[in-house]
Amino acid sequence: MSITQEKKYKSLTEETAISFLQQLGYLENEVCECVEIGDGNLNLVFQIKAVGKEKGYIVKQALPYAKVVGESWPLTIKRATIESQAIELYNKLIPEFVPKFYHHDEEQAITVIEDLSDLDILRKGLILGESYPLLPKHIGEFLATTLFYTSDFGASPARKKELEKLFNNPELCDITEGLVFTDPFFNSETNNFEDELKNVVQEIWDDEELQVEVAKLKLGFFTKKEALIHADLHTGSIFTSSSETKVIDPEFAFVGPVGFDLGQIQANLLFQVFTRLENKKEILDSLVEIEKVFNETFTNLWKEHTEYPLNKKAVLHTTLDNYWIDAIGVIGCELIRRSIGLAHVEDVESLPLARRLVVKKRILQFGVTCIKNRFKIRNIETLTRELEV
Amino acid sequence: MSITQEKKYKSLTEETAISFLQQLGYLENEVCECVEIGDGNLNLVFQIKAVGKEKGYIVKQALPYAKVVGESWPLTIKRATIESQAIELYNKLIPEFVPKFYHHDEEQAITVIEDLSDLDILRKGLILGESYPLLPKHIGEFLATTLFYTSDFGASPARKKELEKLFNNPELCDITEGLVFTDPFFNSETNNFEDELKNVVQEIWDDEELQVEVAKLKLGFFTKKEALIHADLHTGSIFTSSSETKVIDPEFAFVGPVGFDLGQIQANLLFQVFTRLENKKEILDSLVEIEKVFNETFTNLWKEHTEYPLNKKAVLHTTLDNYWIDAIGVIGCELIRRSIGLAHVEDVESLPLARRLVVKKRILQFGVTCIKNRFKIRNIETLTRELEV
Repeated sequence: MSITQEKKYKSLTEETAISFLQQLGYLENEVCECVEIGDGNLNLVFQIKAVGKEKGYIVKQALPYAKVVGESWPLTIKRATIESQAIELYNKLIPEFVPKFYHHDEEQAITVIEDLSDLDILRKGLILGESYPLLPKHIGEFLATTLFYTSDFGASPARKKELEKLFNNPELCDITEGLVFTDPFFNSETNNFEDELKNVVQEIWDDEELQVEVAKLKLGFFTKKEALIHADLHTGSIFTSSSETKVIDPEFAFVGPVGFDLGQIQANLLFQVFTRLENKKEILDSLVEIEKVFNETFTNLWKEHTEYPLNKKAVLHTTLDNYWIDAIGVIGCELIRRSIGLAHVEDVESLPLARRLVVKKRILQFGVTCIKNRFKIRNIETLTRELEV
Repeated sequence: MSITQEKKYKSLTEETAISFLQQLGYLENEVCECVEIGDGNLNLVFQIKAVGKEKGYIVKQALPYAKVVGESWPLTIKRATIESQAIELYNKLIPEFVPKFYHHDEEQAITVIEDLSDLDILRKGLILGESYPLLPKHIGEFLATTLFYTSDFGASPARKKELEKLFNNPELCDITEGLVFTDPFFNSETNNFEDELKNVVQEIWDDEELQVEVAKLKLGFFTKKEALIHADLHTGSIFTSSSETKVIDPEFAFVGPVGFDLGQIQANLLFQVFTRLENKKEILDSLVEIEKVFNETFTNLWKEHTEYPLNKKAVLHTTLDNYWIDAIGVIGCELIRRSIGLAHVEDVESLPLARRLVVKKRILQFGVTCIKNRFKIRNIETLTRELEV
C-alpha cells in the first residue's frame, strides 16, 4: 500500500491543482485564480476560484513531513484521509458548522472543500478585538452534536468500534501526547521560552504533585475512548463571522476523551482573558455559555437517543461531570504548553516582552492551578470565578 | 473479502482435519487418532494424535454461527484470527502459561495449537475438589504480564494503537455487552432462571441504584482501553494440573478495561466458595493470592519498563486501585449473569434444586453488594472478609 502511495503521490502546484479540480468537473474551462495560502508546515492549501464566481474551492494536500519552528520530521499522509473522513462525518451530523465536503483522493492525500476565506479566523479576529456573539452557542452545539453521536450514548456499539478503527491515528496522537502532555513538563529540547521564565519553568518541572497529575491526564488521553474528538480545536481551527461558525482541520481526530476538545477550545479562548485589556468579561461569558450550551444540547440528544441501560440520568450527570473535570485539566496543560512548549499562540506572542512575561507567568500559574485542582474546580463557571478574583 | 471467505471456507471433518495437518507437515503418513471434542456451539475442535506419540495437536475451526441454549445466530469467523493473534502474542509474552501456537489459516478460520488434554479443565477439577496450589501464582503472573505489556505502561503508544486495531472485535464484545452488562438486569428474553427466583430477580430489576451502577460499569467496558484483555477468562478457559497452568480460548480479546479480566476470573473462582461444603478457605486464599501476585508482578514490570511521565509511583497506585475497583464491579455482574442470565456455570447448576436456590440467592445478594459497594470494598482482601462473616 505505502509503495503505491509513494509512487502516485506528487506535490501539487498551482497549475496542477486547477487541473485536478477541472478533471473532477468542479471547474469548467473558466479563467481561474489560484493562490497557495498554506503555511507550508504540514499542508499545501490552494484557494481556487473561477473569475466572477462568488464561492471558490480549497484544495488541500497533506505533505509527507511536518515542519514546526525549523524542525522537520516525516509524517504520514494518511492524516488527509482521517481529516476528510471527519469532515464528511461532521457534514452528516451538523453541516452548518463545517465546510462543505466535495472530494477526497486518498493516494494523493488531497481533499477538496468549500472556500471559507470570506470568514475570519477566530484567533485573528479576537486579537483584533472583534466580537462574535453567536460563537459560544455554535461551538457548544458543534461539540455536543459531534461528540454525542460518536459516543456510546449516540452511536451503536458496532458503529463506535468502526469509528475507533477508521480514526486509529497513531502519528498525530503522538504529536499531541508529546507536545501537550509530556515535553512542557520536563527539560525537553522541543521547549521554547524566554530566558526570564527559567525559574518559573523550573518550578513546574520540580513540582511532584503537578507531575503526577499531568501523568494521570496523559494516561487518560491514552485510555479514554469516549467519542470521536477533533483533537486540535484551538481558535486557529475555527472560521467565523457575526452569523457563521465553521470548524476546520480535523486531521488529529481520533476516538478519545471528550474533555480534550472541551478543554482545548476553552484554553485557547482563555488566552484572550489574559492578554486583552478590555472586554475580558465577554470572553469569560463565552466560556460559561459554551459549557451551558454543550451540557444542554448533549442532554437533549441523550433524552431522545440513549438506550438502556445508559438511559439513567445519574449516568449522564456523572459522565458530564467527568468530561468537565478532564477539560479543566486539559485547559491547564494547553495553557502551559502554549506558553513554554513548541507551538505558541499569537495572542500571547504578539505582546511586547515585558508584558508578555507578566502574562505568561499568570498563565502558567493558572495552568498549574487547573491541573492540580480540577476535581475541586469541576466546571467552567467555578473556573471563571477564580479568574475574576 | 467476505465473499472470498465464504467461498473458501468449508467445515472440517475428522478426515479433512487430519489431511490439513499433514499438508502443513505436522504429521507424516502416520496412523492418527482424531476426535471432535468441541461442544458444537461455537467451534469445531479436533484432537489429533499420531498413534504412539505422546503429544498431539488441536485443530480448532470457528463456525460461522453461535449456538447457546438452543438459540443460534450468525457470528463472524474473524474471531478465529483474533484468537490466534492473541495466542501468538501470549506466546511471546509468557509462553509457559498458554498452549504452543503452530498455525493459523485466516480464510478457513482454523488454528492449530498444542493439545493440552493431559491437563484438567480448572472448573471441572475444582468441582471435583481438586487442589491446584500453583494456580493463583500462575494466574496472577499471566494476568500481570499480558496486561502490563499491552497497557500504556508496557507498550509504546504506537504499539498500543496497533493492538487496538488488530483486536477491534465488535461481534464478540457485543455478546459480552449484552450477556454480562445488560440482559440480566432487565426482563430480557435471553435470561434463564428458576421460577422460585422470580421475586429476587424482580428486586434486581427494580433496584434503581444498582441499575445506575451497572450502566456505569457497562460504559466503562465501552470506553476504557487500558490493555489487551482476554475477556472470557472463566475457569472453563484454563487448563491446569499440580504443576502447570494454561490459558486458552482468547477469541473475545480486545483492548478494554483490565478490571474485566481480574473480576471475571475471581468471580468464577468465587462460585466454589458458594457451592463447596469444605475447603472454602483454600479458594478465598487463592483469590487474595491472585491479587497479591498480580499487584507485585505488575509493579515489578512497571519499575523496569515504564517511561516518563507514567513512571510516577502515585500513578501506578491509582491505576492499580482503579483496576480492582472495576474488578469488584465485574465480579458482581459475573456472579449475577451466571446465575440468572443466558450462560450458567456447572459449579452451581450441578447442585440439587433446593440447595441451588439457596446458593443462587446468596450469590445474587453478594453480586449486588459488589456492584454497589465497589468503591468501599476496593480490593479482594476486603471482599473476602465480607464473605467470611
